[in-house]
Amino acid sequence: MSDKNQIDASKIDKLAILAVKVGLGLKKGQNLIITAPIESLPLVRKITKHAYKEGAGIVTTLFSDPDITLSRFKYADDDSFNVAADWLYKGMGEAFDNNSARLAIAGDDPQLLSEMDPDKVSRANKANAIAYKPARERITRFDINWNIVSWPGKAWAKRVFPNIPDEEAILNLADAIFDASRVSVDDPIKAWDDHNKTLRLRTDWLNKNNFQYLKYTGPGTNLKIGLADQHEWMGGASVAQNGITCNPNIPSEEVFTTPHAYRVDGHVSSTKPLSYQGSLIDEIQVVFKDGKIIESKAAKGSEILEKVLNSDEGARRIGEVALVPNSSPISQSGLIFFNTLFDENAASHIALGQCYSKCFKGDANLSKEEISKNGGNSSMIHIDWMIGSKEIDVDGINFNGDVIPVFRKGEWANS
Amino acid sequence: MSDKNQIDASKIDKLAILAVKVGLGLKKGQNLIITAPIESLPLVRKITKHAYKEGAGIVTTLFSDPDITLSRFKYADDDSFNVAADWLYKGMGEAFDNNSARLAIAGDDPQLLSEMDPDKVSRANKANAIAYKPARERITRFDINWNIVSWPGKAWAKRVFPNIPDEEAILNLADAIFDASRVSVDDPIKAWDDHNKTLRLRTDWLNKNNFQYLKYTGPGTNLKIGLADQHEWMGGASVAQNGITCNPNIPSEEVFTTPHAYRVDGHVSSTKPLSYQGSLIDEIQVVFKDGKIIESKAAKGSEILEKVLNSDEGARRIGEVALVPNSSPISQSGLIFFNTLFDENAASHIALGQCYSKCFKGDANLSKEEISKNGGNSSMIHIDWMIGSKEIDVDGINFNGDVIPVFRKGEWANS
Repeated sequence: MSDKNQIDASKIDKLAILAVKVGLGLKKGQNLIITAPIESLPLVRKITKHAYKEGAGIVTTLFSDPDITLSRFKYADDDSFNVAADWLYKGMGEAFDNNSARLAIAGDDPQLLSEMDPDKVSRANKANAIAYKPARERITRFDINWNIVSWPGKAWAKRVFPNIPDEEAILNLADAIFDASRVSVDDPIKAWDDHNKTLRLRTDWLNKNNFQYLKYTGPGTNLKIGLADQHEWMGGASVAQNGITCNPNIPSEEVFTTPHAYRVDGHVSSTKPLSYQGSLIDEIQVVFKDGKIIESKAAKGSEILEKVLNSDEGARRIGEVALVPNSSPISQSGLIFFNTLFDENAASHIALGQCYSKCFKGDANLSKEEISKNGGNSSMIHIDWMIGSKEIDVDGINFNGDVIPVFRKGEWANS
Repeated sequence: MSDKNQIDASKIDKLAILAVKVGLGLKKGQNLIITAPIESLPLVRKITKHAYKEGAGIVTTLFSDPDITLSRFKYADDDSFNVAADWLYKGMGEAFDNNSARLAIAGDDPQLLSEMDPDKVSRANKANAIAYKPARERITRFDINWNIVSWPGKAWAKRVFPNIPDEEAILNLADAIFDASRVSVDDPIKAWDDHNKTLRLRTDWLNKNNFQYLKYTGPGTNLKIGLADQHEWMGGASVAQNGITCNPNIPSEEVFTTPHAYRVDGHVSSTKPLSYQGSLIDEIQVVFKDGKIIESKAAKGSEILEKVLNSDEGARRIGEVALVPNSSPISQSGLIFFNTLFDENAASHIALGQCYSKCFKGDANLSKEEISKNGGNSSMIHIDWMIGSKEIDVDGINFNGDVIPVFRKGEWANS
């Protein structure tokens, strides 16, 4: 941690430059839409500055505030939880169609809504997911360059470091974010270049092997995940449909692809808590049959889990499978961030719901029908969910039936 | 001024309740779109709370930040100043079509952009005005209930009170805003009820007289303003097209109507500085012929004035005429707020550009063609501009040619 009592301004600036140049790969003339907590204003100001320096057309930030978010759950009429700001999401979708880039700053209290009525939370999330669907689809099919970075918000910092003074918790989380985002080094852009090359070696190996199934074994887990037909492994820098190379997640340690929505069988246990839109779901255990979750329980947040699984037809099937070694820097930090962006990079995971349509062979933008035919799942949700740990082995089974070790005790078997 | 060192929380709450109940007259189930500087967060939080308590569907706030606004003018490519966030304005227009209410919080530095390149400022304003036009038209034709209130932002407070410490300036401006907005009294809602009744007496008298012309005389001013055919005087509480009674401006001391775009002749001098989108224009003198400004000058900001007048065809004609007595509380405060919302309520004024289509007889929503035929002006701008003072007399000339005193030395002649 820093020994000064405010967040290192030079690292904020480095993170902003990284977000614009590496995260977004922002191109001259592109408009940019940012969503951000008001608390992250120092970072938004720097990102805006560097976006304009890179030639951005217009930068628009939609700020959020936890007190305002809570106000609705505390004071609104019951009918409020069936509506969303449709006009705003629709507009965002149109902006993406006009090649606007998208940046999100994460930093809110991961348990902001944990004391609100779960039924209201679930209905509000559902209304939001429906309204946001057209815009979200443009992100999941990777039409445009997008990026998420993080800001050490106070409430979040207190969740991660509950037993120290506020200011110290914020500085600790700031350092953890800067380290995980590789901006604590002299040249973050070179560091990301090297990191992207390492991830590329992994995806090349997985794509060459072209596995039919992955098999996960370990305590509480015995799961066979069929991969989608024509699936392609991706990770780190990727090229969006608009031709721009970007790094959607900062940090990112994962390689990932699209599983087959109807070929997942067995049981699996979560290995880290899942922070879902302000609520915490922990110690999840589910049983899959023919790709569908047919049994589920959770030690904490089981009510929210049930509502999530009942969101729509595709919510009980998975749309992403990702491999992350236990030796990843985020895992080694020993911290639980209660934030998927970080925690998913500490462990192998799967995601309930919508698949990334980009994770298929060839450059063509597949139609919904083609994606579905290949086994890609469709849903209004996409929720990452950690199933890896140092006790989990993963094998790849190819089309000849050969069993090839992928992970042993949470680490790449072939390194 | 207050002797505590922070803004009176109970008055913030009263202003929020007033904005929701009297300003907007918000109805159960209505969505609400707020625009606000981040600095006004304490007021936004209270407004959001009271909006939900009144049964709002969803409240969406679009926050702005002066540093982010300036970033564009400092760092963006030249091309940036030709674009606007079209998707956002288009979405707002759609939200208004779906009966969303609109609330704006004013509080920015009135001279924020004064040191930026006037050409860039003018082009950015024009691009914005074009993008915002569809949404703005829904406001000017009064489709939905809307309201503006103010927040004592630090930079604004320092403009109004330049020679005292920051904190004291903010508290002084807060008190001036609370006083002018009638929330310093025990029961602001009753105070507004009484005030609305007084304004109604004025509009009834003006409508009964049905003047053909108003004639303004005083130092630097000799101006004849023809009123639009079928014009109606309005002021204070009004009924929007969606049937909801609201008070668009808090504070408001004016009664106003639509002049005839082609029947304004003579010369007129501004009596207060005009703060236009971050720039100050002062000591304006113009000559009208057949409704059009054919000569213009300003001691300060003449370059901006010229660009404003050249915005479009309707920018050299007027769309509003408003009467405010010199004894109005805002005038009597002796302060210059450098903010139209306040300064227009200290003096009689006219507005360049778009007319309020609601200021015509009958409840029907007139078409653009009918408005134009009645003499209502059309433009993408609407800029209020103070021409009244204690030295100005106003006469009304009716269709019989009778000359009836309206104002003498800046006060209502008939009171």
